[in-house]
Amino acid sequence: MKKKEKENQEEKEEEEEEEMSVERIFEGKEVPSWREQLTVRASVVSFVLSVLFTFIVMKFNLTTGIIPSLNVSAGLLGFFFVSVWTKFLDKSGLLKQPFTRQENTVIQTCVVASSGIAFSGGFGSYLFGMSQVIAKQSENAGGNKEYKNPTVAWMIGFLFVVSFLGLFSVVPLRKIMIVDFRLTYPSGTATAHLINSFHTPRGAKLAKKQVRVLGKYFSFSFLWGFFQWFFAAGDDCGFAGFPTFGLKAYKYKFFFDFSATYVGVGMICPYIVNISLLVGGILSWGLMWPLIETRKGDWYPADLPSSNIRGLQGYKIFIAIATILGDGLYNFFKVLGQTLLGLFYQLQYKNMSGVPPIEDRSSPRSSSTSYNDTRRTQIFLKDQIPTSFAIGGYIAIAAISMATLPHIFPQLKWYYILVIYLVAPTMAFCNAYGCGLTDWSLASTYGMLAIFIIGAWAGAAHGGVIAGLAACGVMMNIVSTASDLMQDFKTGYLTLASPRSMFVSQFIGTAMGCVISPCVFWLFYKAFADLGQSGSEYPAPYALVFHNMAVLGVEGISNLPKNCFTLCCVFFGAAILVNLVRDTVGRKRAQFIPIPMAMAIPFYLGPYFAIDMCVGSLILFIWQRINKAKAEAFGPAVASGLICGEGIWTLPSSILALAGIKQPICMKFLSRATNARADKFLGA
Amino acid sequence: MKKKEKENQEEKEEEEEEEMSVERIFEGKEVPSWREQLTVRASVVSFVLSVLFTFIVMKFNLTTGIIPSLNVSAGLLGFFFVSVWTKFLDKSGLLKQPFTRQENTVIQTCVVASSGIAFSGGFGSYLFGMSQVIAKQSENAGGNKEYKNPTVAWMIGFLFVVSFLGLFSVVPLRKIMIVDFRLTYPSGTATAHLINSFHTPRGAKLAKKQVRVLGKYFSFSFLWGFFQWFFAAGDDCGFAGFPTFGLKAYKYKFFFDFSATYVGVGMICPYIVNISLLVGGILSWGLMWPLIETRKGDWYPADLPSSNIRGLQGYKIFIAIATILGDGLYNFFKVLGQTLLGLFYQLQYKNMSGVPPIEDRSSPRSSSTSYNDTRRTQIFLKDQIPTSFAIGGYIAIAAISMATLPHIFPQLKWYYILVIYLVAPTMAFCNAYGCGLTDWSLASTYGMLAIFIIGAWAGAAHGGVIAGLAACGVMMNIVSTASDLMQDFKTGYLTLASPRSMFVSQFIGTAMGCVISPCVFWLFYKAFADLGQSGSEYPAPYALVFHNMAVLGVEGISNLPKNCFTLCCVFFGAAILVNLVRDTVGRKRAQFIPIPMAMAIPFYLGPYFAIDMCVGSLILFIWQRINKAKAEAFGPAVASGLICGEGIWTLPSSILALAGIKQPICMKFLSRATNARADKFLGA
Repeated sequence: MKKKEKENQEEKEEEEEEEMSVERIFEGKEVPSWREQLTVRASVVSFVLSVLFTFIVMKFNLTTGIIPSLNVSAGLLGFFFVSVWTKFLDKSGLLKQPFTRQENTVIQTCVVASSGIAFSGGFGSYLFGMSQVIAKQSENAGGNKEYKNPTVAWMIGFLFVVSFLGLFSVVPLRKIMIVDFRLTYPSGTATAHLINSFHTPRGAKLAKKQVRVLGKYFSFSFLWGFFQWFFAAGDDCGFAGFPTFGLKAYKYKFFFDFSATYVGVGMICPYIVNISLLVGGILSWGLMWPLIETRKGDWYPADLPSSNIRGLQGYKIFIAIATILGDGLYNFFKVLGQTLLGLFYQLQYKNMSGVPPIEDRSSPRSSSTSYNDTRRTQIFLKDQIPTSFAIGGYIAIAAISMATLPHIFPQLKWYYILVIYLVAPTMAFCNAYGCGLTDWSLASTYGMLAIFIIGAWAGAAHGGVIAGLAACGVMMNIVSTASDLMQDFKTGYLTLASPRSMFVSQFIGTAMGCVISPCVFWLFYKAFADLGQSGSEYPAPYALVFHNMAVLGVEGISNLPKNCFTLCCVFFGAAILVNLVRDTVGRKRAQFIPIPMAMAIPFYLGPYFAIDMCVGSLILFIWQRINKAKAEAFGPAVASGLICGEGIWTLPSSILALAGIKQPICMKFLSRATNARADKFLGA
Repeated sequence: MKKKEKENQEEKEEEEEEEMSVERIFEGKEVPSWREQLTVRASVVSFVLSVLFTFIVMKFNLTTGIIPSLNVSAGLLGFFFVSVWTKFLDKSGLLKQPFTRQENTVIQTCVVASSGIAFSGGFGSYLFGMSQVIAKQSENAGGNKEYKNPTVAWMIGFLFVVSFLGLFSVVPLRKIMIVDFRLTYPSGTATAHLINSFHTPRGAKLAKKQVRVLGKYFSFSFLWGFFQWFFAAGDDCGFAGFPTFGLKAYKYKFFFDFSATYVGVGMICPYIVNISLLVGGILSWGLMWPLIETRKGDWYPADLPSSNIRGLQGYKIFIAIATILGDGLYNFFKVLGQTLLGLFYQLQYKNMSGVPPIEDRSSPRSSSTSYNDTRRTQIFLKDQIPTSFAIGGYIAIAAISMATLPHIFPQLKWYYILVIYLVAPTMAFCNAYGCGLTDWSLASTYGMLAIFIIGAWAGAAHGGVIAGLAACGVMMNIVSTASDLMQDFKTGYLTLASPRSMFVSQFIGTAMGCVISPCVFWLFYKAFADLGQSGSEYPAPYALVFHNMAVLGVEGISNLPKNCFTLCCVFFGAAILVNLVRDTVGRKRAQFIPIPMAMAIPFYLGPYFAIDMCVGSLILFIWQRINKAKAEAFGPAVASGLICGEGIWTLPSSILALAGIKQPICMKFLSRATNARADKFLGA
């Protein structure tokens, strides 16, 4: 009974604490100087986490292309590692510096910068889309067989000359975006709240519990991945090919594949995303593809292998592309419009009164908030980074980039690059601003625009496909880093981290990412022979999608199978229409309307991972029903554990594959009749 | 907070209640007359539960022969059914009589009597051991191929003429055993406590929660059984053939077969039983059989099929028999000794002072206990059953039995039966008395003695095998019912149920059992074509063991493979020795020494179900570590749910099999090399 009362007492104290201004709680704590925020331990922890998250992101790249927000996991794990470190040092009497939230932010920033490159490096999209294995699958009639297979050397070189541009382009804008415009940056804000909470007494206790839960599910997920491994000798073997709903449904990719990762992702993603995926899967694999299959021999030649792009595969790929493009362009123009409108208001209001109109409207302004603001702005503006340094850096790197990139990709002429670098800062600004408003980074869409424009400019005769994909890489890197890093600056602003330490940390993180990501990708590439093959463990769906976009941009629609273009137009229009409807019916009703972008992903892959994710949703839903508070406190930790555990299992699994150690057993699923035949054969 | 306080308040009240005499709590409640205790709803509920538990017991009979105590499940489910019934009637205004603990006891008694016959009827041992399928497997050199295949008609007839004898033989003894000797009957006492607790306010609340937990795991287990079904087309298919520890280990039956039932059983059985099973499994399948296999061609002919009793199979069966016999005989003489010693003291002390020396020593005597005693004895002695009625009944049924049994089994002469019936009451008394002291019913051991004695008497030329097995049936039925029913009388004594209503209920239950059990067995027999085949889903291990015991008794040891008899002697001696050691080192150390009887079971079956049960142990162990109170309150409910759910799934599964609906998919496990061959064949 004593214990209960004590807990109640604590709960009350904590509630009071909540109501206080955050910065008042931290008032007594000195903010370390920017050099003190950059510690050796932070670099070590950042490196370890960067490798971990690069593996996880790479796995997502190569399996479905859906990359959930890993901020909470990074925050929790960063906190865990440094806590262990400091506790250990504290006990051995070697601790010189306590663990501060600023240091935590620095780690967070470094990890985000580094693992961000695993996404923007295009290992699951444009970069791998240049390779022979993908080019072969999209064999187009024109005999255009140009490809560029990945090697570690050129990938690292390429990333080094393109990845830092985003960083330099965004630095001069940080005061405008964060202090003047007071943009929300939901993810960055959420991360900052998380980090702040870790360093309050109550938060630290909760964080410890969360870390324990994360650890438990991490181990479970890792061991589950390990267990599954033994039974996956051969194609369609193991739990990943479990015909949960029968063999007929399995043929159309309706099954639960026992992936802890995607169940975890389902717990993180909003319900509507998971439902959209499932609806898209049912629409395509449950309805459209079986219907189109009945037209075999009429709409497309009956004797094509199933992976040929001129057969059913073509419908899958191009209808998906059309939907993604429709949704992407709609949102591009929408966010662009909002950006311009926002800017217009910003400038007008600024001229009039100086009160920033766009801000976090969720919490009412009070004296505590203004204290927070004053203190944060003061710290944020203390350590400056000269604008001339940023502009100089941008120009220098752009020049190096222009000189070196054509050596890597002969198809990418220096003047294409110049054009990209001239427009890129504007695009980076747009994306960072849009992301601050909506939390939606449109990097992929900007990349796709680059594919079409540069691809068409180069033309089929001059290697337009490779040129387009490379241009996409240049554009995506700048635009994506810009929004990522601005999110980080927001986090830093809210945790009183110095912009200068943030910049250094981002710089280090980017450099680490430029080395780690290609190496990790190389490991996958060497370890899994069927990487990028349709239907394999790592189909890398977006690699094929990006490649075919480039082909489309270069060669036009003449190579599509019959009626495919018509269907593409319908889906392109439908994507825009659905988005329009979503925006007009109001937020409440919109949450019941599927998102076209999410619906398009299973068009090519099949609905199996959508089923995993819906299982995750269902678990979370039931959990919330039973105990809402607990589900909200520990749901993200469970999800992170599930994602990270199986994610990191890919490291030993790829090492096993490299070492030539093969899975010993095949768990096979045969129909009763086939089984009887097989038994007879094996018995004989 | 309010809610918490209220709960604390209630907890305190409940603690006080606990300390009070049980009968004081019930003082205000009138005890219904014995006729009122026998209600129509009780019969209906008893019938439903009897069918349910007959299915479950039959499943145990035919899979491993280990039958866990189902008292808690029966108690919980009985309470649940009648509660629902009375609540429903109460709402519709038709309720005439409230649900009392006496009625609950009557249901319990009826279900135990009925489902007891599923065990003592020998469907997994002597009765099925007479059938052709078993006889074929034990093909002995002598060409002795006598068998008697089961049919519903003779099984029902046989059970009716032998099952009531135990009931009549035990009735006159009930006052001596319960009131005079004050024997413990641990299971009966536990059941009574359970029933009493259900009918106190706190107990009813807990019971409701337990029923909910039971229901949850029941559904889970049922659905899991259902799900597994789809993947089990063919031999070695499905989860029951999952090579969890690899294919090599699977070959020696080391695997986790995902059986919810045996995980549940593991949660009920004491740790040492589960560990003994595992140790026995490792000793035999991990060590001895592989070693004996290396002597193939020397110790036994190399060209025998693996199921031939003169090959490796013979070692498995006869070493198991030797160990079971060693343990059984040791305990037989031990319990007999205790019985005689106990009787001697009883009679001496009775002559001296009248204070009964053997009683439940766990609770100190207090005024509340003496109030309990007085009240219980008063009720227990109120409704008498005349001894002349019991003796008359026994003689009448024995006469009918002697006249009819030789018609069913021509090999079983009437004078064998007469001899059995002359010694049976003594045996029944011994078993009931021993069971009251130790909770250990030695029915199987008495049955085995009958096999050897009558088998040897009849001899090989006059169908000694069938005669022995039939004699075993006659003996086992009397002896087993005697101890079961005395347990029930103890329950009745502690819940103030009238002995007369108990007798009627036992009578009805026995009659129901005589019809239900053969029908359920018949369903299994018809539905599963490979029933009793070694290595199949339902190997009925004890059927083969009993059959071979009879063969051994009739034909001697001449037919055993080389060195088998030596090994048998070693294990027979070891079983006795281990028991001796267990009894001398004291209770504390004995709990770390395996039980030979339990070790012998996996000798024939393999350790897979022992692994399931150890998983159950492990779950319970961890649960107890985390929350001891909760684990103890809900562990049995979870276990019951797991057992009953999959147990009742055998009903629809056998109906599906009868209807010819076959499992659609085979989940197969192949080695990498075999899989490559199979894929090549299937692809071609």
